[in-house]
Amino acid sequence: MMFRRVAIFGVGLIGGSFALALKRAGMVQEVVGAGRKRETLDQALALGIIDRIALKPEEALAGCDLAMIAAPVAQTENILSSISPHLEASTVLTDAGSTKSDVIAAARAVLGEKIVQFVPGHPIAGRELHGPQAALAELYQNKRVILTPLPENSAASISAVTQAWQACGAQVDTLSAVQHDAVLAAVSHLPHVLAYALVAQIARAEDAQLKFGLASSGFRDFTRIAASSPEMWRDIALANRDALLNELSTYQKMLEHLHGLIERGDAAGLEKLFTLASEKRLSLNLPK
Amino acid sequence: MMFRRVAIFGVGLIGGSFALALKRAGMVQEVVGAGRKRETLDQALALGIIDRIALKPEEALAGCDLAMIAAPVAQTENILSSISPHLEASTVLTDAGSTKSDVIAAARAVLGEKIVQFVPGHPIAGRELHGPQAALAELYQNKRVILTPLPENSAASISAVTQAWQACGAQVDTLSAVQHDAVLAAVSHLPHVLAYALVAQIARAEDAQLKFGLASSGFRDFTRIAASSPEMWRDIALANRDALLNELSTYQKMLEHLHGLIERGDAAGLEKLFTLASEKRLSLNLPK
Repeated sequence: MMFRRVAIFGVGLIGGSFALALKRAGMVQEVVGAGRKRETLDQALALGIIDRIALKPEEALAGCDLAMIAAPVAQTENILSSISPHLEASTVLTDAGSTKSDVIAAARAVLGEKIVQFVPGHPIAGRELHGPQAALAELYQNKRVILTPLPENSAASISAVTQAWQACGAQVDTLSAVQHDAVLAAVSHLPHVLAYALVAQIARAEDAQLKFGLASSGFRDFTRIAASSPEMWRDIALANRDALLNELSTYQKMLEHLHGLIERGDAAGLEKLFTLASEKRLSLNLPK
Repeated sequence: MMFRRVAIFGVGLIGGSFALALKRAGMVQEVVGAGRKRETLDQALALGIIDRIALKPEEALAGCDLAMIAAPVAQTENILSSISPHLEASTVLTDAGSTKSDVIAAARAVLGEKIVQFVPGHPIAGRELHGPQAALAELYQNKRVILTPLPENSAASISAVTQAWQACGAQVDTLSAVQHDAVLAAVSHLPHVLAYALVAQIARAEDAQLKFGLASSGFRDFTRIAASSPEMWRDIALANRDALLNELSTYQKMLEHLHGLIERGDAAGLEKLFTLASEKRLSLNLPK
């Protein structure tokens, strides 16, 4: 399999790494880049991530087999609107957004009958850095990519997106959008909110400087994700609101329970809960 | 300055590293090890951490200039009781416990007038590993050690403990016990409770396997401390109950606030809080 032309809407870390990986695998003849900022597109061109800049969506989409939307989730609907009139029948459209139900709802509203061409996806990979300079051909190597195909998608469209990601070195699985959003709320979106909350709490304390000065490597690792982009995580929190609130409410109940155990001095109850967590954590085979 | 004889009660990671560092600095002639488990003492002897095993406290304390209690906080009171009758007037006693107010209360109850000899301390250092095999002469290099001296302590006693830690490569500061416990509750004890809570919540979910399978490096780092010893953290949570509950209550209010922001779709409010946290986190100079 070989793509004649791939269009990337958003040539930063995620879209740029996708383009580089497809190129390295010899899976694409030409990559066309589109995006809001001319400077970013120029960088991507200079770095060999894209072969050509498209200033209008119709230029990006003409004769293209695969189009990837790799922009912050809050921009997805606007990009879909600009793409929709120019999407040729032979183009498979996919995305890399961190949330899926909201993207699908936007796509259904905007794409009309062309929804059959849209195969939603989410690569579980990232770095703290962003922009074309951060893109790496090996970013998706041995990472998971979740597709949440629609009932309308053809097997051929799903297969094209699957093969593209496999060529990037990823393991591709499918889930329903609802399942995807619930899972990511628990293992990604909630931890980000919790890390932001802890750093904000200490930053607001009178003795913030003393506290941060005595923080150890445990605190450093726990709060690493609190350095993530506030805009991006604001958008994800709102895009996945229902699933996130569901996990957050469960977590709030868990803290109430823990508060009670500590208040009552319930050593056995605390040890039971801590042991469940530590045995599970030690048994996990998490990404390097 | 040079110690003729140092006694270590608890020759695991913390006490063992203290002994190795003092030896490397040429600060001690003889290190005597005491503890509950003969096997651990034999290991420490074989590893050159201690020069001699003391099976009774009086053997450990005879002619000793400095005695260090480096056992889990829940054992401190028992160890103090066994030490008290044999503590010679010329011995300075210190500890390495993660909480200070409770240790001081126990020491006051047990030591009587000998409280003047006890200079409480806490090295902010550790590893996931424990036991004598995990001990490292360089564990305290460039780390912080907090002393919480008592009004009764002589300047000479405080100086002896300070010099011992400085010889280990640490930076020594003093705080009140209350301040110490409040600071550590915020930057260490609370994050441990939060990490345990998140892993326990996901472990209890029906789709736990799916969730853990899609966890990324952000989750890995956030939950690293959830692999810590359940017994040790149960004891710390209870030993520092008041300060921990205070921080936990503040955190619960923070989560209520965040829950409201997400529920109401308050993008500006979320961004403000996330930005405060991410800017602060990026500005911190945390331990390597």
